[in-house]
Amino acid sequence: MAVEPFDVVDLIHAKRDRGTLTTPQIDWLVDAYTRGYVADEQMAAMTMAIFLNGMAREEIRDLTLAMIASGETLSFDGLGKQTTDKHSTGGVGDKITLPLAPLVASFGVAVPQLSGRGLGHTGGTLDKLESIPGWRASLTNDEFHQQLRDVGAVVCAAGSGLAPADGKLYALRDITGTVESIPLIASSIMSKKIAEGTSALVLDVKFGSGAFLKDIEQSRELAETMVALGKDAGVATTALLTNMNVPLGLAIGNANEVRESVEVLAGGGPADIVELTIALAREMLALAGRPDADVEAALQDGRAMDTWNAMIRAQGGDPDAALPVARETHIVTAERSGVLVAQEALPFGIAAWRLGAGRARKQDPVQHAAGVDLHAKPGDTVTAGQPLFTLSADEPERFERALEALDGAYRIGDADDPVDTGGPLIAGRIG
Amino acid sequence: MAVEPFDVVDLIHAKRDRGTLTTPQIDWLVDAYTRGYVADEQMAAMTMAIFLNGMAREEIRDLTLAMIASGETLSFDGLGKQTTDKHSTGGVGDKITLPLAPLVASFGVAVPQLSGRGLGHTGGTLDKLESIPGWRASLTNDEFHQQLRDVGAVVCAAGSGLAPADGKLYALRDITGTVESIPLIASSIMSKKIAEGTSALVLDVKFGSGAFLKDIEQSRELAETMVALGKDAGVATTALLTNMNVPLGLAIGNANEVRESVEVLAGGGPADIVELTIALAREMLALAGRPDADVEAALQDGRAMDTWNAMIRAQGGDPDAALPVARETHIVTAERSGVLVAQEALPFGIAAWRLGAGRARKQDPVQHAAGVDLHAKPGDTVTAGQPLFTLSADEPERFERALEALDGAYRIGDADDPVDTGGPLIAGRIG
Repeated sequence: MAVEPFDVVDLIHAKRDRGTLTTPQIDWLVDAYTRGYVADEQMAAMTMAIFLNGMAREEIRDLTLAMIASGETLSFDGLGKQTTDKHSTGGVGDKITLPLAPLVASFGVAVPQLSGRGLGHTGGTLDKLESIPGWRASLTNDEFHQQLRDVGAVVCAAGSGLAPADGKLYALRDITGTVESIPLIASSIMSKKIAEGTSALVLDVKFGSGAFLKDIEQSRELAETMVALGKDAGVATTALLTNMNVPLGLAIGNANEVRESVEVLAGGGPADIVELTIALAREMLALAGRPDADVEAALQDGRAMDTWNAMIRAQGGDPDAALPVARETHIVTAERSGVLVAQEALPFGIAAWRLGAGRARKQDPVQHAAGVDLHAKPGDTVTAGQPLFTLSADEPERFERALEALDGAYRIGDADDPVDTGGPLIAGRIG
Repeated sequence: MAVEPFDVVDLIHAKRDRGTLTTPQIDWLVDAYTRGYVADEQMAAMTMAIFLNGMAREEIRDLTLAMIASGETLSFDGLGKQTTDKHSTGGVGDKITLPLAPLVASFGVAVPQLSGRGLGHTGGTLDKLESIPGWRASLTNDEFHQQLRDVGAVVCAAGSGLAPADGKLYALRDITGTVESIPLIASSIMSKKIAEGTSALVLDVKFGSGAFLKDIEQSRELAETMVALGKDAGVATTALLTNMNVPLGLAIGNANEVRESVEVLAGGGPADIVELTIALAREMLALAGRPDADVEAALQDGRAMDTWNAMIRAQGGDPDAALPVARETHIVTAERSGVLVAQEALPFGIAAWRLGAGRARKQDPVQHAAGVDLHAKPGDTVTAGQPLFTLSADEPERFERALEALDGAYRIGDADDPVDTGGPLIAGRIG
């Protein structure tokens, strides 16, 4: 065996004692962990030390670059189009990628959107699209590039060859209680996005009860860290700080989120989804050199919908096919008349997850028709007995635990009670 | 599989976020880790969180009790003698157990000394005794009790059935950089000692360059924590804080440390070894109800030596046999005349280890004749060209790396230069 240039226990001691790891130390650590020379328990101790003691900007950059170097990288240099990508840190009812990718692509900009599946209470874009009959998430490299050229928008599964160190580290963090760390989240997201080879990137960094980071100041720090990492790597990067205290839109699940996305592409849809889709599309198009693109018009005149239909068909899906419907529904009604003054994102996300829309373990399937449909949003006037939300599931025994999650998650008040939304939808921009 | 009452990730989050774990949580964690339900990487993240965020006294007590409950416990209730034990946190040249156990036992008090082997730069008592031809560390339970009755002193290997959770956790801490944590050291030592069933315990808690904890205040906190744990568990416990900045005695190794111990038992030996042996013997005998025992007399009149001879013979050893001698020696002489003003423990411990007296991995053998013999101690006047210390090894190629460790580890000054010993040998008492 080759002599290793560092002893991992020395590096753990350094980070444990609030030291700064050097570039060669981080390069070696990530490589040795990927090779299995550094054991999971050693990396777990290191990640907890990073969680508690933090990392300097240079260490975060080195960690990101080392994770990129652990695998292959993509390039769109031969495409002849600007590429621009969006990443959301994840939320409840966050289906924005679905209307956004075809909307941006309808202006001739390529949107190569390598996505993941949901784990826990936040949904995954691929899970949502897989509720469309025939649609498939896996593409060959040739299919991927062909679709980018022909349609402009591709949403598909990322290959495991991109930043494999990040995949291994993320799985470790998930079981060792070290997920919510800004240096580790930032390097994880940005290593994948930079390896994917996009030339521009817009980050939707969420804060609030349904987001990974509850506090806006933490989200701002995460956004600033990621924007700096992107720029350092030559990727034009901006970020929006967006509010995840209240579910996004009215649909939380998979098939129902596709339905809502199609409404937006048809020029309708809930106001918050439309607002966020338009804001992110403007950011992406500005980075791609199209700051004046009239994105509202493309939603109203059918251009975005045409690109959606082409995108779904290119991946084997039938955009006109009926989406799956759940076998059982349970409607919750208003116990009094008044104004809906609170509707918390996290419990609704957990309820949809428990109904079968999400998965507890990576290998679990999701139930595409399961989820929650909201019939009122905070600020809406409601009448006693009117439906507030509908739970859908294939197995009726799931309703009880979903309803438990929703206990205290919403509140009907009087007309003059303050409405609790945690502030405006878009709370800041970093770029 | 039974439903677990806790989710380990929740417990990691609690400790990570500076919370306090409850008694049922700690009981479950230790049991689940011992059963393998909690994975090494999860326990590694937890121990790093404990290292950095600490533990309340109640948590340390709960952890200690849970580790005791993970295995069997011994009892000396049927012995008809007081039992008293000593534990040292480990140092360089620390052979005190060898003269101490027979000295205390010569007063009719039982000394069941379950010991370990050395790892790293601190030696292990069993390694030292195994340099005596024929001596064996493993005894059956019957042999152990018989020897306690007949001889009074037993130094032997602890069975793996005592506090197995501690054994597993210690091995994990060793490779994950979480050794030097007061809650983890205290619970590790005290879980084994309490499980061993002694009714009284004296702790030799070391501080200084050759100790695990360099700082006396940290050592004091460790000593106070362990004394409280012992008393809570019904074990009469006291501690001495002792200086480990300078090697103890003149011999560092295995066979040479046995030789030095026999000198002490013959009424001679280096002053520091005699002082510490007598101080610890007085503590042990006081706890066993013999505060007025004349320990100096037992060293001078041969009673301690008689018990030593009986103790070695009972375990198959020949106390009169010649001890092994190294194949090669290398003498380092004084480069000038003056006073030896510095002699740092840690580099001398590392040098002896590199010469073959210690092991890098658990499964490695030690070389019994390897080590360092000092010919001067701090404060001694030396003459240019006189031997300062002798290195012994079976393989001459080991000298170079041992000498590297000793670079700058000692210094000859002028008669009026201050002598650097880090203060008196016995710096405090807790009890």
